[in-house]
Amino acid sequence: MSLPIRPVYRRNVTSDATAVAAANLAFYRALESRDVETMSDVWLHDAATSCVHPGWHRLDGWDEIERSWQNIFANSRPWTVSCEDVRVAIAGDFAWVTCVEVIVPFGGDDEDDAARMQATNLFGRVNGEWRLVHHHASPSPTEQLVSEEPVN
Amino acid sequence: MSLPIRPVYRRNVTSDATAVAAANLAFYRALESRDVETMSDVWLHDAATSCVHPGWHRLDGWDEIERSWQNIFANSRPWTVSCEDVRVAIAGDFAWVTCVEVIVPFGGDDEDDAARMQATNLFGRVNGEWRLVHHHASPSPTEQLVSEEPVN
Repeated sequence: MSLPIRPVYRRNVTSDATAVAAANLAFYRALESRDVETMSDVWLHDAATSCVHPGWHRLDGWDEIERSWQNIFANSRPWTVSCEDVRVAIAGDFAWVTCVEVIVPFGGDDEDDAARMQATNLFGRVNGEWRLVHHHASPSPTEQLVSEEPVN
Repeated sequence: MSLPIRPVYRRNVTSDATAVAAANLAFYRALESRDVETMSDVWLHDAATSCVHPGWHRLDGWDEIERSWQNIFANSRPWTVSCEDVRVAIAGDFAWVTCVEVIVPFGGDDEDDAARMQATNLFGRVNGEWRLVHHHASPSPTEQLVSEEPVN
């Protein structure tokens, strides 16, 4: 079976992978900034986009997604955002990034106060730029859960 | 901005969208069957694949994913599986499907006993066949949560 899909790891970094990783990082910088304009620059503005915030139903299209960010940013306090365990896979003009989001309230402690979310971020290359077309985030397991069996 | 990405709804069904929806349905039939071979037929067997079961850390590559299905199926009881609110978007040889998984224990009641999961399923077209390359499922909100604000 031929493989148009290439997994990309740090040891095998291509310019495409670097550009996708940069687009993913820009999303988390926008999340940290709590600025809707900055967040807007990351997304494709199209009806095809979709978004699942943690524990939330799916939002369809950029208009709904933009309103959700306005609500989130209006109701959030300063936080720092980083991501761990980043994995990039590219298939032509489409890429998916999986990572663990680490969100710490401003002044909080990385170990005790961090919320960790498992994220799937899909990017499409449009006119040479990688734009976010789908985001799905959900709570990541705590340490004691890791020893248990997954249940789908 | 040009749009290589096409959202596909029921009113605008193409043969590609039908094929992707069929691949998505095959995944849920495999989940319902609790048969690893049936599940194996749905996935691309490649190191690029990834999977996030609900509340679980990410699994990388088909070998890890296959083991997780073996564990899940060995430890699960009969259930019925369906999906609601299916949305298909296609960009060339790549597609993402979002839907709500509805999992009901055998003999259970659809309303009271169903577990609902929000899912993102990514498919790649390889040699003309749509194969699952990434699955991310997480608990869907209950009714009372829908009135609250999303928190990312």
